[in-house]
Amino acid sequence: MENNYCVIMGGGIGSRFWPFSRENYPKQFLDFFGSGRTLLQMTFDRFIKIIPLENIYVVTNVAYEALVKAQLPELPDQQILLEPTRLNTAPCVAYAAYHIRARDPEANIVVAPTDHLIIKEDVFLNDVKKGLEFVKHHDALVTLGIKPSRPETGYGYIQSSEQTQGEFTKVKTFTEKPNLEMAKVFVQSGEFFWNSGLFLWNVNTILKAFERYMPDITLRFNMGLDKFNTPNERKFINEQYPYCRNISVDYGIMEKADNVYMLCVDFGWADVGTWGSLYDMAEKNENGNVIISKGETMLYESERNVIAIDDPKRLTVIQGIDNCIIAESGNVLLICRMGDEQRIKQFVADAQMKYGKEFK
Amino acid sequence: MENNYCVIMGGGIGSRFWPFSRENYPKQFLDFFGSGRTLLQMTFDRFIKIIPLENIYVVTNVAYEALVKAQLPELPDQQILLEPTRLNTAPCVAYAAYHIRARDPEANIVVAPTDHLIIKEDVFLNDVKKGLEFVKHHDALVTLGIKPSRPETGYGYIQSSEQTQGEFTKVKTFTEKPNLEMAKVFVQSGEFFWNSGLFLWNVNTILKAFERYMPDITLRFNMGLDKFNTPNERKFINEQYPYCRNISVDYGIMEKADNVYMLCVDFGWADVGTWGSLYDMAEKNENGNVIISKGETMLYESERNVIAIDDPKRLTVIQGIDNCIIAESGNVLLICRMGDEQRIKQFVADAQMKYGKEFK
Repeated sequence: MENNYCVIMGGGIGSRFWPFSRENYPKQFLDFFGSGRTLLQMTFDRFIKIIPLENIYVVTNVAYEALVKAQLPELPDQQILLEPTRLNTAPCVAYAAYHIRARDPEANIVVAPTDHLIIKEDVFLNDVKKGLEFVKHHDALVTLGIKPSRPETGYGYIQSSEQTQGEFTKVKTFTEKPNLEMAKVFVQSGEFFWNSGLFLWNVNTILKAFERYMPDITLRFNMGLDKFNTPNERKFINEQYPYCRNISVDYGIMEKADNVYMLCVDFGWADVGTWGSLYDMAEKNENGNVIISKGETMLYESERNVIAIDDPKRLTVIQGIDNCIIAESGNVLLICRMGDEQRIKQFVADAQMKYGKEFK
Repeated sequence: MENNYCVIMGGGIGSRFWPFSRENYPKQFLDFFGSGRTLLQMTFDRFIKIIPLENIYVVTNVAYEALVKAQLPELPDQQILLEPTRLNTAPCVAYAAYHIRARDPEANIVVAPTDHLIIKEDVFLNDVKKGLEFVKHHDALVTLGIKPSRPETGYGYIQSSEQTQGEFTKVKTFTEKPNLEMAKVFVQSGEFFWNSGLFLWNVNTILKAFERYMPDITLRFNMGLDKFNTPNERKFINEQYPYCRNISVDYGIMEKADNVYMLCVDFGWADVGTWGSLYDMAEKNENGNVIISKGETMLYESERNVIAIDDPKRLTVIQGIDNCIIAESGNVLLICRMGDEQRIKQFVADAQMKYGKEFK
């Protein structure tokens, strides 16, 4: 238990949730479900039940330091690891691993994104404990795989093999988001599972994997070996982190490593990565509309929309609109087809090009 | 010229333009076209070219007194006639006629609503002068009829006869908004013209018509004959006006009278009564969208919408939406199919029932 660590990755911008998720206030800091707790807080609340507080880390961008402190006041400052640059997950995972190994060379780590919803918390916690126990005794990189319920094209997939170690199955391949046809084949085959983005490993296993598959990262971080978990770490990271390769741990490590295992889990998981995934999991009214507005809403002949209006004093009247995202937050109103939500990133980029950072 | 008067009717709520037109700030007080002048001001600006300032009246609801004074500071206070109750046009027309006759028993009056756009102003002014000259010499109620360019179902129609007096044609019937089939027949026949809502008459002709077709109004206003155009008028109107019948001058007088003449006009007229009519007349971008937003707007794969966003600091991003009204003003956002805009009145009523006057 005291060797178990949790790393919550909370540095993303979540631009697919624009305009709710904004560069200066990304989705992990929002209370999407009106539960009173933000995505970051919900993630923390889950892990604090099985990981000692002093072993919980949040890695985030330096811009969000104040937000993390405000939302998790119980978390000691030195457990917030600050990225000076916005990079993908590989450097983030490496940084956390170097920091934790300097504290505890026997550490077993669960790495978790903040953008998912977990319904069956007891099942989830039990699976995480199982995973931490497994990586303590096996030189394995573990991922939690979700049995797919539909041919979702928005998720990555994990292909399992027949080789097992108890409940853990050796992974054959990681696959990026497939097209619909391929997704259907995946689901039918029974071999493929959704990649939850939750990983578990012993600190030495993951650092060995970096040495092998991303030696550039290892070389760079080894330059500061004596600085991790000391007052000099921050300066070292600020100087060296920006030079790390901007790729995901999935792509940089998991797809290449030969010691990846999957635990097939069923804890009511859903990705909160996009408006569409939010739509899928949220409560719907009798016409299939998801209304997460703080103000008043009146709907006429409108079906299967997500309506997210942030202004509590606003009345929104919608008539004759189907399958749309209608989202207003701050100084931005977005109306967009549900199926085309992957273009939101483009809208944000276009807005920045035209108007600068004002609406980002 | 000095016997010529103009009565601008500016007391409506314009709820078909909700949420731009609000009960406390109706459409006639809005600068719809971004021209720098409101509909009321544009109407005033037209008439001041041919009617002496001291002969121009605005009839409005008492609630809008301050707005009229603010928007037409040159108009003397005693030329603002205040209705204590919101009623249709018949009592309004009668009130103005009684007031003006007390000042000038020879007055020729042009009555004009504020909710239209007139493109060829010189033609318009010439037609008004012609009409005022005609009613000076003929015991006739005159209406300006527009040659229809399409089978519009949102307008009233005037049926002309073969009987003429110079350029003026005797009117056979007034017809309420027809259905599409009937409108097509109307247009094809060549006999039918759009009712512009612009009327001209000598004050004695219209008051004789009231005596004959709405004697209840005549009886009531005759009780205060000695009060019109005196300091006692206001008190009398406040007491008696609310008891007047709530019907239009079209229905109460024009449809029934046998001395109604039409001048067929072609001064580039368009009704600004609804979002759809605004769409028809406003400038469109290459995809047929009308954008009258004060803030920034970005459109993707969206055609034939009216987008009216009142907040100058707002960015609006719209993707994959066609034929819709997207209007935001004050605390209300409305998204509605263009063809279903006649339902906006219902939305306003529903909102009032649910939330009180907050969003009206």
